[in-house]
Amino acid sequence: MSDRSDPARPNAQVTTRGRLDRRIFLKRGAALLGAGGLSMAMGPAARAADAPSPAPAPGAGMSDYGHPARYEESVKRTLIRSQPGTTGSGASRTPLEMLEGALTPGGLHFERHHSGVPDIDPSVHRLLIHGLVRRPLIFTVEALLRYPMVSRIHFLECSGNSAVMYGAAPSTLTCGQIHGLVSGSEWTGVPLRILLEEAGIDPRAPWILAEGADAAAMSRSVPVAKAMDDALVALYQNGERLRPENGYPVRLFLPGYEGNMSVKWLRRIKVAATPTMTKDETSRYTDLQADGKALMFTYPMGVKSVITRPSAGFRMRGPGLSEVSGLAWSGAGAISRVEVSMNGGHSWADAALSAPALPRALTRFRIPWVWSGGPAVLKSRARDETGAIQPERDALITEHGANAIFHYNAIQAWSVSPDGEVKNVYA
Amino acid sequence: MSDRSDPARPNAQVTTRGRLDRRIFLKRGAALLGAGGLSMAMGPAARAADAPSPAPAPGAGMSDYGHPARYEESVKRTLIRSQPGTTGSGASRTPLEMLEGALTPGGLHFERHHSGVPDIDPSVHRLLIHGLVRRPLIFTVEALLRYPMVSRIHFLECSGNSAVMYGAAPSTLTCGQIHGLVSGSEWTGVPLRILLEEAGIDPRAPWILAEGADAAAMSRSVPVAKAMDDALVALYQNGERLRPENGYPVRLFLPGYEGNMSVKWLRRIKVAATPTMTKDETSRYTDLQADGKALMFTYPMGVKSVITRPSAGFRMRGPGLSEVSGLAWSGAGAISRVEVSMNGGHSWADAALSAPALPRALTRFRIPWVWSGGPAVLKSRARDETGAIQPERDALITEHGANAIFHYNAIQAWSVSPDGEVKNVYA
Repeated sequence: MSDRSDPARPNAQVTTRGRLDRRIFLKRGAALLGAGGLSMAMGPAARAADAPSPAPAPGAGMSDYGHPARYEESVKRTLIRSQPGTTGSGASRTPLEMLEGALTPGGLHFERHHSGVPDIDPSVHRLLIHGLVRRPLIFTVEALLRYPMVSRIHFLECSGNSAVMYGAAPSTLTCGQIHGLVSGSEWTGVPLRILLEEAGIDPRAPWILAEGADAAAMSRSVPVAKAMDDALVALYQNGERLRPENGYPVRLFLPGYEGNMSVKWLRRIKVAATPTMTKDETSRYTDLQADGKALMFTYPMGVKSVITRPSAGFRMRGPGLSEVSGLAWSGAGAISRVEVSMNGGHSWADAALSAPALPRALTRFRIPWVWSGGPAVLKSRARDETGAIQPERDALITEHGANAIFHYNAIQAWSVSPDGEVKNVYA
Repeated sequence: MSDRSDPARPNAQVTTRGRLDRRIFLKRGAALLGAGGLSMAMGPAARAADAPSPAPAPGAGMSDYGHPARYEESVKRTLIRSQPGTTGSGASRTPLEMLEGALTPGGLHFERHHSGVPDIDPSVHRLLIHGLVRRPLIFTVEALLRYPMVSRIHFLECSGNSAVMYGAAPSTLTCGQIHGLVSGSEWTGVPLRILLEEAGIDPRAPWILAEGADAAAMSRSVPVAKAMDDALVALYQNGERLRPENGYPVRLFLPGYEGNMSVKWLRRIKVAATPTMTKDETSRYTDLQADGKALMFTYPMGVKSVITRPSAGFRMRGPGLSEVSGLAWSGAGAISRVEVSMNGGHSWADAALSAPALPRALTRFRIPWVWSGGPAVLKSRARDETGAIQPERDALITEHGANAIFHYNAIQAWSVSPDGEVKNVYA
């Protein structure tokens, strides 16, 4: 493990002014902790008798399928802004501020449905590949499960993630409620390339249309170049079969692209000469700019990061040492660097990236912080292997206007007040 | 992604004699599929009307916390060999043959309890560090959550995994029932080194004792060298807080070491001059050899692999192309190579390893196979970055005898009969 991936040896630290400079944490870490700034440990008076006793009686037995502890019931997805009058159109968000690491458990992966979660019997479901192919093919799920597969860890982000941040005033929602339309999983499936080649795709065909079996028949046009590159016909997520709300029994997965294009409950792929201009890419999922024009087909999600801990709604427990932790990701490749500022962007220091920093995957970053007890503004700024850098909010709005809903990837600022309250601010 | 990590471009393939030679799958893949050997696709008569219709009505809405599809209810842990007369002493096994990728969902991670799963309120739980330290310390869970953390993907394997394979006759259980005391997760926690240094560990102290808060007070001696290297005080698993059956709210995690040493429900760490010789390392978790002597303190799990698909209980659906898929892991480091044989070990070919192949982590391997319809014996043989190679069963028994229960890591052979039945064999 390199120094860079080890938060116990970060290359930066914050002084009591919130100004960052480069020191080695471990050389002073124990002393800082021991100084009682946070009184994290209760020593040195501890004795063996202070530890809890072992359980007085045998505990619960084994179970078929486990669940989180009952003390963690508050760790759940939040349903925000569902469409009135519908049963399944809306979204639920991952509680990013309650999680750690770079994977999202299946039960907490965000949801975005256009007409709810269909109940699909895998024994009757079929996937059709037709259009500009030599021979149309239709696959049972059982057949798909016998094809060669690949497994990769990738993020999935709804293009509407963080949309509330386009608003004129900072939202009072939590980090997950604002930014939690992103999650990370290991996806396993059949490379779409293999199926298209078996069908004899016309080498000159530039587009496919992917269509879901939900009641909305969610449909998106995808460039063949992407379909033949790293697109998966996904069957498994985090080791087990897809969850219903993630497209069971089969979904398209397009690494790095806006989430809606990874069409769930995939029923049909049509190879085509042009984009199909479906409702989902004309009336929806276009990016209205300041001048009233709209961008279409804006596929990759931009380089982005957010500090998850502390974040809006947290309250600092007093001055001293704590760890700042967050997530970074980019639709263009691997995260190469995350910088953190404690003074609103006047100075920055490198956070440690948890290894491995995989392409198009959530990457955990961490940095220790000694809070002086004074006001502070925390920001994180990610860059990816292509050199792209996450923009400040002002720059994003200047370039694109504030009419948009989609592709918000600006730097998030959290303020810390002297009483320890953490808030979302535009700073 | 390198060719090596892409099962669509494996560097080996099997002929109809079960003999492996090196060809490129993609050059012949479509042709093989199209030859109808498996009739995986139903083309070329497919038409658009053959695809299932979109759902006729809106589906279910969003949910707080998701669950697997109702069609997947058979994918569950299997309870094998529980201790009679006890409620929580025994094990449940991961259904390896039903999973894909290299991660295990939290609900299917294997269990091994010595007196059941205690119900621990995290607000009252404490971790004590005492013994040969300058100042004993006691930590609340809330305090631990504020320390610097690291996240790493690692396997966890019970030292008793695959024990039935020491038996004189091959078991008729499934792959998961035999080998499913191993699972893979992303673990996040505080490096134990930080806590020991804060307590002022005596630099000459060679051992710690780790003790759990279960009714069995499960206790193991751990070398300080391991404790100061990569040991974690783990708080999160796969992004969310530990599940109760995995030690909620806090467990020790020792990458690569036999699972029982990663003490769950961790309540006490005592720094000591000698191993404590607890019941769990004297009467239990020692390796009885052929000569009646027993090995103690056999920490790292050996290099190992198993083909999960096809495996015992599967039935081949007819001759032709399919994919052979399995898992490999080593307590000593990263998996560097997995070879697969279809003829009982007479010839071998390299399987593709799914990237990244991380140290002390489950690594998925895959290789395409054209089954002729004749008898075959499938084996996989793993090696790790230290050069260690998984032994044949005969060699393991010759070296250690068949009295043992623990540390079985020999090559698994599955036979395929002409009627397609797959069985566990000693071959």
